[in-house]
Amino acid sequence: MPVGNVANPETVYEIDGIRIGVTAAGVRYKNRDDLVVVELAEQTNCAVVTTQSSFCAAPVQVLREHITDNKPRYLLINTGNANAGTGRDGIERAKLTCSALAQRLDDSVSAQNILPFSTGVIGEPINTDAFVAGLDAALANLNAANWAAGANAIRTTDTIAKLASEQVQVDGATYHITGMSKGAGMIRPNMATMLGFIATDANITQPLLQQMLASLTEQSFNRITIDGDTSTNDCCVLLATAKADASVIDSVEHPHYQSLYEALSRVFLRLAQLIVRDGEGATKFITVNVCGGATQQECCDVAYAIAHSPLVKTACFASDPNWGRLLAAIGYAGVEGLDQNTVSVSLNEVNICERGQIAEDYTEERGQAAMSRPEIVIKVDLARGDYQDTVYTCDLSYDYIKINADYRS
Amino acid sequence: MPVGNVANPETVYEIDGIRIGVTAAGVRYKNRDDLVVVELAEQTNCAVVTTQSSFCAAPVQVLREHITDNKPRYLLINTGNANAGTGRDGIERAKLTCSALAQRLDDSVSAQNILPFSTGVIGEPINTDAFVAGLDAALANLNAANWAAGANAIRTTDTIAKLASEQVQVDGATYHITGMSKGAGMIRPNMATMLGFIATDANITQPLLQQMLASLTEQSFNRITIDGDTSTNDCCVLLATAKADASVIDSVEHPHYQSLYEALSRVFLRLAQLIVRDGEGATKFITVNVCGGATQQECCDVAYAIAHSPLVKTACFASDPNWGRLLAAIGYAGVEGLDQNTVSVSLNEVNICERGQIAEDYTEERGQAAMSRPEIVIKVDLARGDYQDTVYTCDLSYDYIKINADYRS
Repeated sequence: MPVGNVANPETVYEIDGIRIGVTAAGVRYKNRDDLVVVELAEQTNCAVVTTQSSFCAAPVQVLREHITDNKPRYLLINTGNANAGTGRDGIERAKLTCSALAQRLDDSVSAQNILPFSTGVIGEPINTDAFVAGLDAALANLNAANWAAGANAIRTTDTIAKLASEQVQVDGATYHITGMSKGAGMIRPNMATMLGFIATDANITQPLLQQMLASLTEQSFNRITIDGDTSTNDCCVLLATAKADASVIDSVEHPHYQSLYEALSRVFLRLAQLIVRDGEGATKFITVNVCGGATQQECCDVAYAIAHSPLVKTACFASDPNWGRLLAAIGYAGVEGLDQNTVSVSLNEVNICERGQIAEDYTEERGQAAMSRPEIVIKVDLARGDYQDTVYTCDLSYDYIKINADYRS
Repeated sequence: MPVGNVANPETVYEIDGIRIGVTAAGVRYKNRDDLVVVELAEQTNCAVVTTQSSFCAAPVQVLREHITDNKPRYLLINTGNANAGTGRDGIERAKLTCSALAQRLDDSVSAQNILPFSTGVIGEPINTDAFVAGLDAALANLNAANWAAGANAIRTTDTIAKLASEQVQVDGATYHITGMSKGAGMIRPNMATMLGFIATDANITQPLLQQMLASLTEQSFNRITIDGDTSTNDCCVLLATAKADASVIDSVEHPHYQSLYEALSRVFLRLAQLIVRDGEGATKFITVNVCGGATQQECCDVAYAIAHSPLVKTACFASDPNWGRLLAAIGYAGVEGLDQNTVSVSLNEVNICERGQIAEDYTEERGQAAMSRPEIVIKVDLARGDYQDTVYTCDLSYDYIKINADYRS
C-alpha cells in the first residue's frame, strides 16, 4: 500500500509531438503490458542523465552511444528484465531490439535514433524473440493519450503507475508538461532514477535542456532513497517537442524560463516522491530536512545518514520516537567538527532535542503522536551555517523483507 | 539464534592483574547483571580507541578526559542506558559515577583513574541512584575468574556472551590473552565497537600498545557491519598487565612481538565475528572478500557496499542467488574507472559471474545450494591490482525488523 496521496493528476495533458504505444510482449512477465514505444516528433530535443553505476546495464551503454551523434526519434522501453550484468551478449541484444524497431519504421529513422531502456531482474539474458515479436503491436497502439498506459507498463514491483502533469501560462504562451516514472526498490538514484520520462511542448534548445535536466534531477530523483541501492539501469529523460506556439527558449534569461522551470521542478519532485510513497513495504513517507549547515554537502550527508539508517527506519515503522537513533545517525554522518551541543531535532511540530539534549517540553506521548502519522517530517538544525537540503525516504517494514526475499521467485 | 560456531573457548585464561566484579544494579534492566567493575593492577598499561561519532556519548567524552594525564586503574561499565544525547547533565552523571567508585577505593585512586563505559538506549537520563547503590556489590564480587560473568553482564540485545582467550608461548615465555565484547545492532564501528575489552599479561609499553590496538581494530572491529549504524558509544580497550614473567616489549622488533600480535589478532577477529554471528535477526554469517583491487580502500569500499546492501542481505536471508544485486552494489561502490568486463564473483565455491557476465558453468541449482548454507563467502575479484580486503556481515531478516521495532518497549 503506497503512503498518502498518490492519486494521478486530474488532467494528464497530452504533449503535442509525443505518442506512446504499449503492448504485452511477454519479455518476462506474462499477461500484462511490458513493452513501451515512445515516438518523438522530428524537432524534439532530448536530454538524458544515466546511472553512475560502474555496472551500468547494456541498454544504458547503448543509449550513451546512440545519443552522442544522433537525434533520438524513439524511446524503446521494456520491463521485467534489466539486461544488466549480461556482458557483450547483452549489448548485442539491446542493439538488436533497436534495429528491429528501425526496420519497422520509415527510412529516416535508423537504429541510432532509438534509445533503449530496460528495468527488471539483473543478470539474466533478455528474451529478444518475445521483445521483437511485440514491436508491431506496440507501434499499432501509438497514441498521444497513452501516458497512463505507459506509466502502468513500465512498473516492476511498483504498486501504482506514477504520473504528473501541469499546464503553465506565461505571457500568453501555454506550455504543457507530463511525465511518468517507475521504481520502488533498489532506489538511491545517482544522477537519475530508473525510469523517469518527462516531456514538454516548449521549444528549449538541447544544451539548455540538458542543463535544466541536471539541475531538476539534483533536487528530485537525486534526493530520494528507499534502500540505498543505486540501480544499474537508472535513466531520466527530459523531452521538449517545440510544438507550443511560443519562441525558442535558449537561455535562463528568457522571460518564460523561470515559470517553466518551476513547473518542471514540481513535476520532477512529484514523480520522485511517488517512488518513495510506493517504496517496497513502505508505511510512512519521511521528509528529512537538514538546515543550519556550513555547506549544502554536509546537510545532504546528514539527511542521507538518517534516511539510510535501518534503525531510524524501523523506529518509524514502529511509530517509536526513539530519537537517540537520529542523534546516532547525525553523529556518524561525517560532519567535520560538528559540536553536538548546537544540534536541535524535531519530529513534525514536536521539538525532541534542543542543543544536543532532550527538549524541556518533550514527552514520549507527544513524540509518539508525531511518529504515528503516515507523513513524518524530521527536521535537523545544525546551527552552524545557512545551508539546507532535503531528502525523501520511507520506513523499513516486514514487507520490505518479504518483497525482496521473494522477488524473482 | 546466533549463526554457526559461537561456543565459548574451552579455557578462559585468567589474566594476572585483572579482576572483574559484576552485579544487578537495576540501572535500567531488572533482575539481571548490568554493572561491571574491572580492576587493573597498578602497572597495567591501557590503550583505548573510541567512536568517531560527533554525537559521542557522555562516558566517551569523560574517558577521553580521564585518559589524557592519568593511568587508568578501574573500568566502570553499565548496560541498559548509553548516556548519549544527554548533554551537560549526562557528563555530570558519568563523572558522578566515577567519583562514587573512587570514594569506595583507597586514596591512591581518584575519579580520574576510572574510565566509564555505557551501552543501551540513547537519549534518556541514566539512573545514577541505582548505579551508585550497586557499586559495593560489584566491588565485593571482584574476582580474576569473572570474565564470563562480565561478558554476560555487558549484553544489551546480544543473545550470547562473547569471549575469546589464548595462551601463547614464545622463547620460554608464556603469555595469556582474554577478551570480551558486546554488540548486536547499531554495528558499523568506526575505530572500535561498543564494547571490546581485551587484556594480556604481557609487558607492553603504552605507546606500542596504542599502536597495536589501532592496527588490531582496523582488521577486526573496523571490518564488521550489521546495519551500517555507527554507535555513539563504541569503545575498545586493550590492557597489558605486565604480570607475565618476561621482558618489556617496547618495539615491533622485540622477538616476542610477532607471535603475540598474531595471537591478539585472532582474539580480536573472533570477538568481532562473534558480534556479527549474534547480529540482530541474523540467520547467515557472510564474509565479503574483495581482491584484485588497485588500492586497499577500493576493496574496502566494494566490500562495504555489498555488506550494507539491504537487497543483498535480504537475498541471503531468502537463500536466493540473486547475484544481480551483488553486481549492482559493486557498480555503485564508487570505484573510479572500474571496467565491469574484468569483474568476477563467486559464492562459496560456485563461480557466478566471470568478467562481467554469467559464468559458463553456473546453474541456479548450484547458486541456490551455496546460498542455503549458514556461512556464505562472497568473493569479488576486480582484476585490476594486488590489494584485497575483507568485511564480515549478516543477513537482514524479519527478526531484525521485529527486534528494532520493539526495542525500548
